[in-house]
Amino acid sequence: MTEIIKTDAVIIGAGPCGLFAVFELGLLDIKAHVIDILDKVGGQCAELYPEKPIYDIPGLPVVTGQGLTENLMEQIKPFGAEFHLSEMVEACEKLSDGSFKLTTNHGTVFETKVVIIAAGGGSFQPKKPPISNVDQYEGQSVFYSVRKMDAFKGRDVLIAGGGDSALDWLLNLQPLANKITLLHRRDDFRAAPDSVNKMRELVAEGKVDLVIGQVTELKGPDGKLAAAAVKLADGTVTEITCDALLPFFGLTMKLGPLAEWGIHLNENLIPVDTEKFETSVPGIYAIGDINTYPGKLKLILSGFHEAALMSQAAARTINPDRRIVFQYTTSSTNLQKKLGVA
Amino acid sequence: MTEIIKTDAVIIGAGPCGLFAVFELGLLDIKAHVIDILDKVGGQCAELYPEKPIYDIPGLPVVTGQGLTENLMEQIKPFGAEFHLSEMVEACEKLSDGSFKLTTNHGTVFETKVVIIAAGGGSFQPKKPPISNVDQYEGQSVFYSVRKMDAFKGRDVLIAGGGDSALDWLLNLQPLANKITLLHRRDDFRAAPDSVNKMRELVAEGKVDLVIGQVTELKGPDGKLAAAAVKLADGTVTEITCDALLPFFGLTMKLGPLAEWGIHLNENLIPVDTEKFETSVPGIYAIGDINTYPGKLKLILSGFHEAALMSQAAARTINPDRRIVFQYTTSSTNLQKKLGVA
Repeated sequence: MTEIIKTDAVIIGAGPCGLFAVFELGLLDIKAHVIDILDKVGGQCAELYPEKPIYDIPGLPVVTGQGLTENLMEQIKPFGAEFHLSEMVEACEKLSDGSFKLTTNHGTVFETKVVIIAAGGGSFQPKKPPISNVDQYEGQSVFYSVRKMDAFKGRDVLIAGGGDSALDWLLNLQPLANKITLLHRRDDFRAAPDSVNKMRELVAEGKVDLVIGQVTELKGPDGKLAAAAVKLADGTVTEITCDALLPFFGLTMKLGPLAEWGIHLNENLIPVDTEKFETSVPGIYAIGDINTYPGKLKLILSGFHEAALMSQAAARTINPDRRIVFQYTTSSTNLQKKLGVA
Repeated sequence: MTEIIKTDAVIIGAGPCGLFAVFELGLLDIKAHVIDILDKVGGQCAELYPEKPIYDIPGLPVVTGQGLTENLMEQIKPFGAEFHLSEMVEACEKLSDGSFKLTTNHGTVFETKVVIIAAGGGSFQPKKPPISNVDQYEGQSVFYSVRKMDAFKGRDVLIAGGGDSALDWLLNLQPLANKITLLHRRDDFRAAPDSVNKMRELVAEGKVDLVIGQVTELKGPDGKLAAAAVKLADGTVTEITCDALLPFFGLTMKLGPLAEWGIHLNENLIPVDTEKFETSVPGIYAIGDINTYPGKLKLILSGFHEAALMSQAAARTINPDRRIVFQYTTSSTNLQKKLGVA
């Protein structure tokens, strides 16, 4: 039986706004759990533009997405948030006492007094290959990410794609797998030149097969992959023997399961008020790029501000009888103690 | 005749929110003039806690008030805002074409399409000494700040106070003045130890007179100071000959003249909407600690967010026919050119 994690606050999304919400809730003595579908913190900053400079964070004339993420992780360290990465909240159920039961795709269950949706453009989800019967093999023979490398030990692995994920996993799994085939639609790779060079060496040594083409059909009974039909560049069709397929065709953003939670939506955005940043469901808040209100700008800065105001409101929901005194980090010894600097 | 400065935007207040407004307006091609009553930028950050750490600026785990001010000045450098320091806007008049005429206490006149009030807790104003007839001498013999040191050349100057301003000006004016007397209510000084030591040396050398006591009355006809009656620590009263008095008793914050501009106020705060951060007077915006709306927190962070949303609204007021395309500094070459990085 799954142990239920009971907490005051669950933040969905570990992007900059979700991270800063840990800080603002922490100043109010609220500890948070943070869930993100990515395998790392930072959201779009870390996934889409880790090396790109951002110029409009006030007080930081220039910072990369990765740099901002690292700064925020340092800033929230005193508050000991627990992170649940590579997980997606699938179900959200309102309980009779007003709290919420959240269940992730890994079966983790939370009972929480408030839910904070800081999911940016939604959840990053792998783009699926255009193979009609791919669904039948997912989870058993087709995987969009590698959780445990050991799961591919001794297997015949077909990796599809030409970017960093495809090449990185090829290099990582090659020593473990029985056979690795790399399939890409053209003989030109977007991945880092160094990875491409290493792949070419393995191909030259006969340790990796490189095939230029596209999967058209998967074969094998009961979700157990036996071979992939592949259309080659010249139009002919061949078969590649394999018992695992890893398609790395990039990520796309989808609103995901939260569209089913009964929250009022407006064109895939969540309308909130500008006092509490609360959704149409009391106790569920939305901050950052996923919310909307008159004047809304999808700026990281705005999500930070929203995190601050939301936290005041959430604290009142969590502890309705406690009086909240607004304090400044510059002058309050109490807050400085929480931050570990006094 | 005063030359009128014609501009799109005037920002009243050079604290962090006023400075960041320069940035957000700059991204939208709007150049701003910034006016502040202090003789430096940074507002409360620079005046009240330049050395104190601030912990709640997102992405900056710790920064001093001075450090934040310097970072913001670097960030807004590409936009060439013009600063008018040690000036206070006294009058604001709406013109028939919808623009505003602002006049400062120095007679500088601006004609501007929008006014942005970012005045924090109001204007810093010198605390006046409790001398009944001090008003009669202000401007001619009594000064709360030193604009031009030469104005005190050869004069008999009485400096009252025990803080940094009093001691700094004593050290600066001593070589110029005919005679300097330092008056403080007790023989204990808050100023930097180094300044206090230098003052003690000058006293020991007979170059400065130190008197422990308090001014009770000013003497001399027609606003021309001739002497100050001083009550000494033992209760006796003496007279100090002087033709200039510089009282440095610290600063206090007052709403100041803007209370008279016809803007709707609520307990010394300016109510605004949360879409445009506009006051009850169209074209006059208020951001930062001086505004109020449901949920308002007096955080620097919130003022930054308000500056961003206000700028979008102000740009529409300034150029009603121009279409504004919302862009990101991370991805827009256009914005990067304005920032001087592309």
